[in-house]
Amino acid sequence: MLNFSTLLVEISSYPIKRVAIAAAHDHTVLEAAVRASQEHVAEALLVGDEAKIREIAERRQLGIDNLTVIDRRDDLEAAATAVGMVADGKADLVMKGYLHTDDFLRAVLHREHGLRAGVLMSHAFAAELPGREGFLFVSDAAMNIAPDLEQKAQIVLNTVHLAHALGYEEPRVGVLAAVELLNPAMPATVDATCLHTMGERRQFSPRCLVDGPFALDNAVSKEAAAHKGITGSVAGAADILVVPCIEAGNMLVKSLVYFAGARVAGIVLGATCPVILTSRADSAESKFLSIALGVYLTAVERHLKLKIGRVHF
Amino acid sequence: MLNFSTLLVEISSYPIKRVAIAAAHDHTVLEAAVRASQEHVAEALLVGDEAKIREIAERRQLGIDNLTVIDRRDDLEAAATAVGMVADGKADLVMKGYLHTDDFLRAVLHREHGLRAGVLMSHAFAAELPGREGFLFVSDAAMNIAPDLEQKAQIVLNTVHLAHALGYEEPRVGVLAAVELLNPAMPATVDATCLHTMGERRQFSPRCLVDGPFALDNAVSKEAAAHKGITGSVAGAADILVVPCIEAGNMLVKSLVYFAGARVAGIVLGATCPVILTSRADSAESKFLSIALGVYLTAVERHLKLKIGRVHF
Repeated sequence: MLNFSTLLVEISSYPIKRVAIAAAHDHTVLEAAVRASQEHVAEALLVGDEAKIREIAERRQLGIDNLTVIDRRDDLEAAATAVGMVADGKADLVMKGYLHTDDFLRAVLHREHGLRAGVLMSHAFAAELPGREGFLFVSDAAMNIAPDLEQKAQIVLNTVHLAHALGYEEPRVGVLAAVELLNPAMPATVDATCLHTMGERRQFSPRCLVDGPFALDNAVSKEAAAHKGITGSVAGAADILVVPCIEAGNMLVKSLVYFAGARVAGIVLGATCPVILTSRADSAESKFLSIALGVYLTAVERHLKLKIGRVHF
Repeated sequence: MLNFSTLLVEISSYPIKRVAIAAAHDHTVLEAAVRASQEHVAEALLVGDEAKIREIAERRQLGIDNLTVIDRRDDLEAAATAVGMVADGKADLVMKGYLHTDDFLRAVLHREHGLRAGVLMSHAFAAELPGREGFLFVSDAAMNIAPDLEQKAQIVLNTVHLAHALGYEEPRVGVLAAVELLNPAMPATVDATCLHTMGERRQFSPRCLVDGPFALDNAVSKEAAAHKGITGSVAGAADILVVPCIEAGNMLVKSLVYFAGARVAGIVLGATCPVILTSRADSAESKFLSIALGVYLTAVERHLKLKIGRVHF
């Protein structure tokens, strides 16, 4: 099963990809970009305040001489330029640097010049946890605030697409709530059971193994699932965790990082190319891993002609 | 600063308390009860299916000969009996055993025979994390589904009361959202900023140090807070995390337990006595620690005549 280390090895067998970074004037962003270049993961195109970029690079002794720098002092302009480079075929994917998420997404979501592909875009985290094999995917913890059922169905498909690209033939999707019982007072439990039925009735193509509602413990721990008498192939063994709201997902992922020593990468799915979206406070390593994840996804999508699936109502 | 080990030592200096356990017919519940009795933490009164209780005790070799067993085969009856024992002065506090939370809370919240004290009841977790000093409190991750601002204000007060009892003179309350910016599209960020103002305007008595909105990282990590330029005494140093909804809190706490090796205790505050409320899937140790937390809180409340505070609008 792939993890970040084996993924980096795999990437080296594909042609190098170009990543346009919007507002690259930040030391963790530049560190990630330089490392990506050095390890032949991606060629970084640095869009942002050139003076700041060069000043940070010098102060931090980061070698950016062989990287392209495009001077854009305004964040919105930097985002539009980086996104435009993908449309123009000058970059394969795009990354958020040191700017506010909404400024970045304005360019990505722009009706005319953006990267819309006709489906809901959603964010997914891939987390690698000490002592746990493979990735744990969490979605949507960063983009869709309070998705409705139809949006959650697309979130399932987008995240399953990512898992497929990473070699999960039949990823197990656990839809989370605060409890594992259906409770009419908790809409998250109702949505989870609807997504389960949609999986069983083959309303997702490709077919998806979806179950819920689960509380986190019975989605990830076989023992906790057994104690509650919950059976099925997803119970206690979920690869993908679909969260009911951005608050729940964000806290879950941040607790994995800050308390459980997880390494995570963050990416937006459902656009015309993978969009690397990390938090400004994320480490340089997390930003580097996110570049790697985006590059790998692009490469596999092209190589296997993989596409995001559809849902039927 | 107290942790579970020092708390257990402290308890031994107070007169022993009696805990009535509703639906005690479960092996993790009985293990916790027997350990509480052996370590002089509490005298357990086992209310539930007596035949099952004795069968489990024999099979698991748990010595319950010196514990009181009260035969109640029906879960609702067991809950009503356990709660009634507190009202009758036969028990000091009450604990949920192996029954559904709503069945248990029906007895606790009963208008006539319950344990209402005139304020909103809320649940709090006390978590002890490897490598972190003291407790991290999380509320409300188990009882109030989607509290409004007024309810969140009471949740602040209830949790501050618990922290006070555990020796936190001026606990730092971080109100969580998915982001640290005010975003009108995310009501959690609006509530957080309102609670902050209420703290600054001294609308809580006792005075509370409340700040927000925070994303989890900038509430618990000084480095993450600094990277976003967030200052103040709570930033990166929160003792109490107030979560926006039950889903977010539940996933946060379960991830602390299942991925970060946390030891947690769970308790309901705002009743006439501490109410020990754990999940059926929790370990015997977590149930034991929850008993200890409840016993300690009762003891300190009586000793110091501590009471839950009030909020002024």
